[in-house]
Formats: sequence, structure tokens, C-alpha cells
Amino acid sequence: MTTLVLLSKDHKLLAQLQAAFAEHAPSLQVVLADDPAAAQARVAACWHPPAGSLARLPNLRLVHSVAAGVDHLGSDTSGPVVPVCRVVDPDHRQGMTEYVRWTVLHFHRDFDRVIAQQRSRLWERHPQRPAGQFKVGVMGLGSLGAAIASDLAGAGYDVRGWARSPRQLDGVACHYAEVGFEGFVDGLDLLVNLLPLTDATRGILCSRTFDRLARGAAIVNVGRGQHLCIDDLQLALHSGQLRGAVLDVFEHEPLPAEHALWHMPGVVITPHMASAASHACIARQVAENTRRLLSGEVLNNLVDPLLGY
Amino acid sequence: MTTLVLLSKDHKLLAQLQAAFAEHAPSLQVVLADDPAAAQARVAACWHPPAGSLARLPNLRLVHSVAAGVDHLGSDTSGPVVPVCRVVDPDHRQGMTEYVRWTVLHFHRDFDRVIAQQRSRLWERHPQRPAGQFKVGVMGLGSLGAAIASDLAGAGYDVRGWARSPRQLDGVACHYAEVGFEGFVDGLDLLVNLLPLTDATRGILCSRTFDRLARGAAIVNVGRGQHLCIDDLQLALHSGQLRGAVLDVFEHEPLPAEHALWHMPGVVITPHMASAASHACIARQVAENTRRLLSGEVLNNLVDPLLGY
Ligand SMILES: NC(=O)c1ccc[n+]([C@@H]2O[C@H](COP(=O)([O-])OP(=O)(O)OC[C@H]3O[C@@H](n4cnc5c(N)ncnc54)[C@H](OP(=O)(O)O)[C@@H]3O)[C@@H](O)[C@H]2O)c1
Ligand SMILES: NC(=O)c1ccc[n+]([C@@H]2O[C@H](COP(=O)([O-])OP(=O)(O)OC[C@H]3O[C@@H](n4cnc5c(N)ncnc54)[C@H](OP(=O)(O)O)[C@@H]3O)[C@@H](O)[C@H]2O)c1
Repeated sequence: MTTLVLLSKDHKLLAQLQAAFAEHAPSLQVVLADDPAAAQARVAACWHPPAGSLARLPNLRLVHSVAAGVDHLGSDTSGPVVPVCRVVDPDHRQGMTEYVRWTVLHFHRDFDRVIAQQRSRLWERHPQRPAGQFKVGVMGLGSLGAAIASDLAGAGYDVRGWARSPRQLDGVACHYAEVGFEGFVDGLDLLVNLLPLTDATRGILCSRTFDRLARGAAIVNVGRGQHLCIDDLQLALHSGQLRGAVLDVFEHEPLPAEHALWHMPGVVITPHMASAASHACIARQVAENTRRLLSGEVLNNLVDPLLGY
Repeated sequence: MTTLVLLSKDHKLLAQLQAAFAEHAPSLQVVLADDPAAAQARVAACWHPPAGSLARLPNLRLVHSVAAGVDHLGSDTSGPVVPVCRVVDPDHRQGMTEYVRWTVLHFHRDFDRVIAQQRSRLWERHPQRPAGQFKVGVMGLGSLGAAIASDLAGAGYDVRGWARSPRQLDGVACHYAEVGFEGFVDGLDLLVNLLPLTDATRGILCSRTFDRLARGAAIVNVGRGQHLCIDDLQLALHSGQLRGAVLDVFEHEPLPAEHALWHMPGVVITPHMASAASHACIARQVAENTRRLLSGEVLNNLVDPLLGY
């Protein structure tokens, strides 16, 4: 029986994953880090693993993120370099599509404005604007971003996308690489970030980006907290260059109660809820990749160690 | 040249419609009520016409609502009984679809809860619930309701519909008449009202209806203000039978600043903004029906005087 260790700082999640692996991946011996059998583990399934915990596994041959991103693994895998995989779940895509559609409608149809008006009992109608006149940009056209951009194009929005390499998507004007960034971002009414966190994307939601959007645009961050410069956001909201922001991800989660973002005017905070792979799907995909590892087959959803995603 | 009179208590709207008729219906002589030529008017295009204004038109042969509903015409057409028509615009359908989709996502994906949590800096995740497990009911399956029900079915929701007569819609479980009401409403997570206001539908959003919904359900009123019993809403919100309500329409609009609804916990107020026909579309449809009237052809979008819609 192959031993797999579950590594996370989130103890509630560890218990949930243990139950899911017991049900959906019975071929694996699943242990926690404090179990003596952990030393035999060939696979580690992780969400924010404690610092140094991966380096303590002498027999490790595969690191599996239980999420779409891998940035949470940290950089302290000082042991042997092993392949890193991630989970790609249709439930993820569905959840993210729903979340982003709410944010687009929220700004396109002025729900942000009328909710603010309600506080001062103000009745003011905003003209119904055709979806085709609302410009939405999606940064990142991977497993999630491509699905979101296509969904919005299908709903009639004027959609642009941006990736590292050239992409083709029906109804979406695709741009790529740094040279394509300005053409992508200039004049957008809404910017949605669905990039992975890497050295190349850290801090991309900053004044230089905000200043190119349409005056009074909005942003949605569903990538990672470190994509966003909070000081720049505050400035842009204050000056009116941005009318609002919906933020789902933060450098430190849960967002600390004393953080200024909680009460920044124009900001909606959601608790990293846009989408999650089901625990059943995680268990099945990790078990399948473990089988592939042992039989020497190509692994699914392998991360490129140079690109970092 | 046929004379048409524009009747409304909303003076801003009158000016906008005058400009639209001048551009899109140049074959008509368009006047306001205080113009002496109004006495010749054969057609009246109306939105909340002043009391008695229709009765003062001796040559009237067609009353045209500039909206989807006709309840705002009032009952004082004491002159000769003439046909009543309304406007049915694809822009209406698009706008209403967007508005209702926002409300469905708002409750399905717990945006109402996390926005409330934000006020107390509370980070609490709610599990992602499959759309197929969220039961939405649409009351009224006419030009708007049918489009909305189909859109929600396409997005994966568990959708039921209710009309006066039997209807068939792909992916929607259709119920009809009073005998079908309980089967329609029982256990819904969200109830959307898209009925016209008639004697048969007035006050339909009341305790008897709320009590049959799932515990903690939500309601969306985009029909008319008189569909809703405000006292019953307050009770249901207070007891937790309802978790929230999004209200777009009110008996008196604008909703008076002193009205209790503005600050009722769990209530989102929007300023009758769900959808509107474009002024260009209104002018073209009224002009086309005027042409049909004069040439004796069947009128478009004729209202049934007995049913009142
Ligand atoms: N908030 C949530 O609940 C939640 C849930 C799931 C995921 N996420 C976040 O969403 C991210 C994206 O997930 P995914 O599964 O769609 O990732 P993915 O499939 O790896 O796609 C990443 C996309 O970003 C593009 N990209 C990467 N680096 C870039 C750069 N330097 N410049 C321009 N484009 C670049 C890639 O371009 P190429 O196509 O050219 O490779 C690709 O299109 C995850 O990493 C995670 O951080 C958040
Ligand atoms: N908030 C806004 O911005 C906004 C914008 C536009 C319209 N509206 C409101 O939406 C309403 C609906 O518009 P629409 O164009 O879809 O109207 P419609 O085409 O006339 O459809 C009315 C629907 O309601 C059903 N119905 C009528 N009386 C009923 C009863 N007693 N019991 C059960 N079902 C009944 C009809 O059943 P059958 O199919 O059997 O005839 C029909 O399906 C308008 O009257 C207006 O009040 C609001």
C-alpha cells in the first residue's frame, strides 16, 4: 500500500480530506505528519503545508496541491526535487463562473451604486447599458480564465483576454505577453484577475494597471492576494479612477479582523469562496496521479517548475 | 398626419419620449396633454397618466402602454372602451434576465451572507452548493418570465414555473392555475415574481406563500409593488422564514424617503431598474400599432380586457 501524507495548517481541512480519501481513494494509506508512517510517504497532498514539512520526507516522489494553485506550497522543498501536480475540477470552473458572473452583473447593472444609495434612502435610476458596451478583461486564460471569458462572451459582453502565450477563444479578443498588455487593459470597465501567483505576476494589480482602465472601472481579484497592491487600490478608489473592487483572496487568510480592507469604501470582501474542488474530486485525482507515478505513466495537471504554474 | 398624445406624470420621461418619437416615428404628430391639438389625438402613449386624462380625449381609439405592464393606466378610462396595447422589447428581456441572474447568484452563492459578515469583519466560508440543488421558482411565464426561467435552467438551476394556463419550457417544471400553486411553491429556495398586477395576483407575496417556501428562502419582486404584503415580509424576515428580499417595484415610486423598507434588515431596494424598453423601441412599436389601427390590421401585443394583462 502506498503511503500518502496530508500536509496543511488547516486542521479542519485535514479531517475532511482524511474522510474523503478513506471513501474515494481506499488504495492509499493516508496519514498525517505526526504519524511515524509519514516517513514512508511517497506522496504529499498539500494546502499551505507547515514550513519545512516537505523537506522532512525522505521518500517523497510527488507533491500534489489539493487546489488549482501551487503558490501556497512555499519554496522550502529543500529535499530532492520532485514533480508537482495540481487539481483541475469541473466544479472549480462552475463555481468560478458563477462568482465572476455575479461580480460582472454587480457593476454592469449598477447594483454597487444602488446598494450604496439605499444607505442614504436615495432613489436614482441608472440607464440600462447594453452588455455589448461593457468591456470586461480576464487576465489568465487557463483552465479557469478561459471558461470565464467564454461564459461572459456568451452573455453578450465585450470580452478581452490575456495570457503568456497566444490563445484562441470564440468571441474573446485574446492578447498575450507583456507586449500585449496595454492593448488588453486600455479602457476596460472591469478587470478580472485569474492569474497564478508567480514572480512574473506578483503585484500586477497596481497603479500602472489601474490608470489604464476606463475612469470609474472596477476590479475583481480571484487570483491571489499578492497580485494586489493594497495601497495603490486605496489611492485609485479615493481618486475615483476605480469605483469598486471585489476581493476573494488575501496574502494572509483569514483576513485579520484589524485589516484596513474590511472597511475600505467600495470594497467587497469575500472569504476565498469563489470556487473549490470537491474533496471527492481531490481524493480521486490524487489517487489517479499516484497510480500513474508508480506505473511510470505521464502525470495529469503537472506544474512547470520553471514557469511556476 | 395622425395625432398622438403622450401622457405621464413623469415630465423627464415625456421629454425623452418626445425626442424618440421625433426621430423614430416621424409619421406621427406627437403632442402633450396641454396642447390644443391633443383633443384630436387618436392614440395615447402612457406611463402613469394623470387621473382623468384619458377620459378627456374624445377621439381616442387606442391606448398604448409604453411599458410591459398596463396596471399603471388606472381604471378611470370612463370614455369609450378602446383597445389597450403594451410594448414587448427584446431589451426588456435582456435587462430582466441580467437582473434576475444577479439576484439568483446573490443568494445561491451566499453573497448576501458575506456582505453582512463584512460589516462585522467576520471571515466565514459557506460551502459551494451545486446550482442543481438550488430550487428557483418563477411566477409568470409570459414574455419576460419564460425567458428568465429558461435562462436559469440553462445555468443549471432546479427551475419551476407558474402561469395561469399550461405552458411547456425545456428544463422547467411548469405548474398552472390555483390548483398548481402549492406544487409550484413548496420548498423553493428562491421565488421570483414576474406576474402582471391584476385582481387575481394582487397581494400574492404574503405569509401564506412565504410559509410554503424552504426555511431561509429569499424572494425577488420585479412584478409590481402591490403584489407584496410588506407586513408579512417583515414578519417572515424577522422569524427567519425568509433570509432576504430584493425589491425593484413599489406601490408609490420613487419609494418615499421615510418608508420603513429602506432600512428593513435583509432587504435590498433597487429603483425600478430591472429592465426598460428603449425609447426608440417604444416609438417604433407605437407607430407600427398606429399604422395597423388605421389600416384595420390586427394589433400587436394587445391586452385582454377581461384578464387585465
Ligand atoms: N479564488 C478562488 O477560489 C480560486 C480558486 C481556484 C483558483 N484560483 C486562482 O486562479 C489561478 C488560475 O487557475 P487556473 O487553473 O486557471 O490556472 P492555469 O490553468 O494554470 O492558467 C493560468 C493562466 O495564466 C496565464 N499566465 C501565467 N503567467 C502569466 C504571465 N506572466 N503573463 C500572462 N499570463 C500568464 C497562463 O498563460 P498560458 O495560457 O500562456 O500558459 C494561463 O492562461 C490559480 O493559480 C489560483 O491562484 C482561485
Ligand atoms: N421591474 C421592472 O423593471 C419590470 C419591467 C417589465 C415588466 N415588469 C413587470 O413584469 C410583468 C410581466 O411582464 P410580461 O411581459 O412577462 O407579461 P406577460 O407576457 O403578459 O406574461 C404574464 C404571465 O403571468 C401569468 N399570469 C397572469 N395572471 C396570472 C394568474 N392569475 N395566475 C397565474 N399566472 C398568471 C400569465 O399566464 P398565461 O401564460 O397563462 O397567460 C403569463 O405567463 C409586467 O406586467 C410588469 O408588471 C417589471
